[in-house]
Amino acid sequence: MASNEPQQAVLLASPDDAEAAFYEAMQQGDLEKMRHIWADEEDIACVHPGGVRMIGPNAVYTSFESLFANGPVDVIAHHVRRQLLGTVAIHHVVERVRVNADDEDPYGYVLATNVFYQTPEGWRMVLHHTSPGQGGQVREVMDTPFSSTLH
Amino acid sequence: MASNEPQQAVLLASPDDAEAAFYEAMQQGDLEKMRHIWADEEDIACVHPGGVRMIGPNAVYTSFESLFANGPVDVIAHHVRRQLLGTVAIHHVVERVRVNADDEDPYGYVLATNVFYQTPEGWRMVLHHTSPGQGGQVREVMDTPFSSTLH
Repeated sequence: MASNEPQQAVLLASPDDAEAAFYEAMQQGDLEKMRHIWADEEDIACVHPGGVRMIGPNAVYTSFESLFANGPVDVIAHHVRRQLLGTVAIHHVVERVRVNADDEDPYGYVLATNVFYQTPEGWRMVLHHTSPGQGGQVREVMDTPFSSTLH
Repeated sequence: MASNEPQQAVLLASPDDAEAAFYEAMQQGDLEKMRHIWADEEDIACVHPGGVRMIGPNAVYTSFESLFANGPVDVIAHHVRRQLLGTVAIHHVVERVRVNADDEDPYGYVLATNVFYQTPEGWRMVLHHTSPGQGGQVREVMDTPFSSTLH
């Protein structure tokens, strides 16, 4: 049912709603949903693991088009830390990505910073910056820890 | 002369001032200057290349203390793109870091996202997320390009 609703009916009412929609779009390989999540701003930016920086709607959308050409991305977000600064929300996320289903340990771990901005049409993404963990894992040092190692 | 002035006299009047002070602190290996640049917020965050996430003032400062124990960092920032969202400024930066003075090409390239927040005491850093370039260089795709390859 939900997939038949027009895209404009989707109001991302909070940064968490926008983030959940982002990871759903990844898991579904849904480019239209992904497009709707980003703010319509010329300086939106996406850094994919591997040293490529995409700036601007065309560059960002094209990068997701290329990504989804290989199918949906089996990714979940966890260990989310949230910082709200007025109409801007900065989320620090650990992404667990299934990189090789045949391996005994098929997962890779990525650190992501997601930034959302409150627009009249709801919260939209303006930044997705990812960087690879080292040796397949992510380490964290924090004043109020979840744990010292994240998987 | 300037180095004798008390730290509290430094007002970072714009995001660019705060960013310039950040890279000066790196180049000088000056931990006190670095401490002054960050916002006094429990969720400030720093991701260093190599998959370690630091969250909170103690974790962030300790990571720079460790970094500066090896001396100043020979880094310059270039190809800065700026997005201002109210009291939050998001800067996309390419960092050129001298990693080995003996090499023919001694530089490594890093993509950084720097986020600054306007406080009553001026603009302060709340996020520094870096990720390594691939094969020693950084690629960029953008709607209004500087150039397709950044060095």
